[in-house]
Amino acid sequence: MKKVVLNLAVSLDGFIEGANGEVDWCIMDDDMNFETFIESIDTIFYGRVSYDAWGNFEPDENTSPAERIMWQGIHAKNKFVFSSQSRQDEKATYITTDIAKKVSEIKQQKGKDIWLYGGANLIKTFINSGLIDVYKLSVHPVVLGSGKPLFEDLKQRLNLRLLNTRIFRSGVVELTYEPEQITNR
Amino acid sequence: MKKVVLNLAVSLDGFIEGANGEVDWCIMDDDMNFETFIESIDTIFYGRVSYDAWGNFEPDENTSPAERIMWQGIHAKNKFVFSSQSRQDEKATYITTDIAKKVSEIKQQKGKDIWLYGGANLIKTFINSGLIDVYKLSVHPVVLGSGKPLFEDLKQRLNLRLLNTRIFRSGVVELTYEPEQITNR
Repeated sequence: MKKVVLNLAVSLDGFIEGANGEVDWCIMDDDMNFETFIESIDTIFYGRVSYDAWGNFEPDENTSPAERIMWQGIHAKNKFVFSSQSRQDEKATYITTDIAKKVSEIKQQKGKDIWLYGGANLIKTFINSGLIDVYKLSVHPVVLGSGKPLFEDLKQRLNLRLLNTRIFRSGVVELTYEPEQITNR
Repeated sequence: MKKVVLNLAVSLDGFIEGANGEVDWCIMDDDMNFETFIESIDTIFYGRVSYDAWGNFEPDENTSPAERIMWQGIHAKNKFVFSSQSRQDEKATYITTDIAKKVSEIKQQKGKDIWLYGGANLIKTFINSGLIDVYKLSVHPVVLGSGKPLFEDLKQRLNLRLLNTRIFRSGVVELTYEPEQITNR
């Protein structure tokens, strides 16, 4: 079954962006092998705002070849946009109702995993609905002090199981978890 | 020169205790070798409330031998209590004014490092005064959702350099950082 993977950069104090939306602290190092992650998925879930901002992003001519290839890889995926309103879009399928049921149906399809891209509201919905199978957080060596927290309005404590860690030259530490099953508590 | 080391358990979302003061999520595993850390320090800095709660804590008869030895080790250290009011205490020295100057003087003394024990207010003062040399955070595999944040009312962004990581059986990941020097930015 496909897994829903949240793969996200966070500051050491748990913010996904600064108080003014800053993401200038996010590091993308060669040794992160982000392309390996991109190869492991065939589907991307976007919130509507994130899709409008990044769903069809085209890097400009100053972009490195590696980053161009990354964007080509991203744009080759099957895209779903979670939104209150549907929209005609030949490059994405809109989901407006019955999120848990639709996600469950998509997970039953054969293929690779699903990247839960964000933004914050969609992530919150997925966390609180128990729809995330893997949390892959790249903890950055910076404390922002304020901003948009990854975990917000959590309905209950979330127990996790550490699956893997990777350490990068930049000091970013990638922590990969799965939710602990309630029966195992 | 002695270093001031903040060594603390945090949840993945950056809380040092839950909304009702819960610390039941804190794991102390054998493989953490906490006694090695205790051996690396000869001084402990407490806030007044933390000192009253833990500064002279005596484990009861049900406590494991390993934990008794840990407490003996802790109580053999040179203790300083940061408080607005001084107090007579033959087991600790009270510091009520000129924190930065007094800390600087203690750091000049020969010997091992200093454990900044907490609580939250003292940690906040030390962070914002740039008095912490090493951040050693044991990131626990749990998201609390609310509670007392480690980093609160930070005056400015804090850039760190990753020094070390340790991964424990329990899924706790210890991340050790030093503050990045402004001249290196």
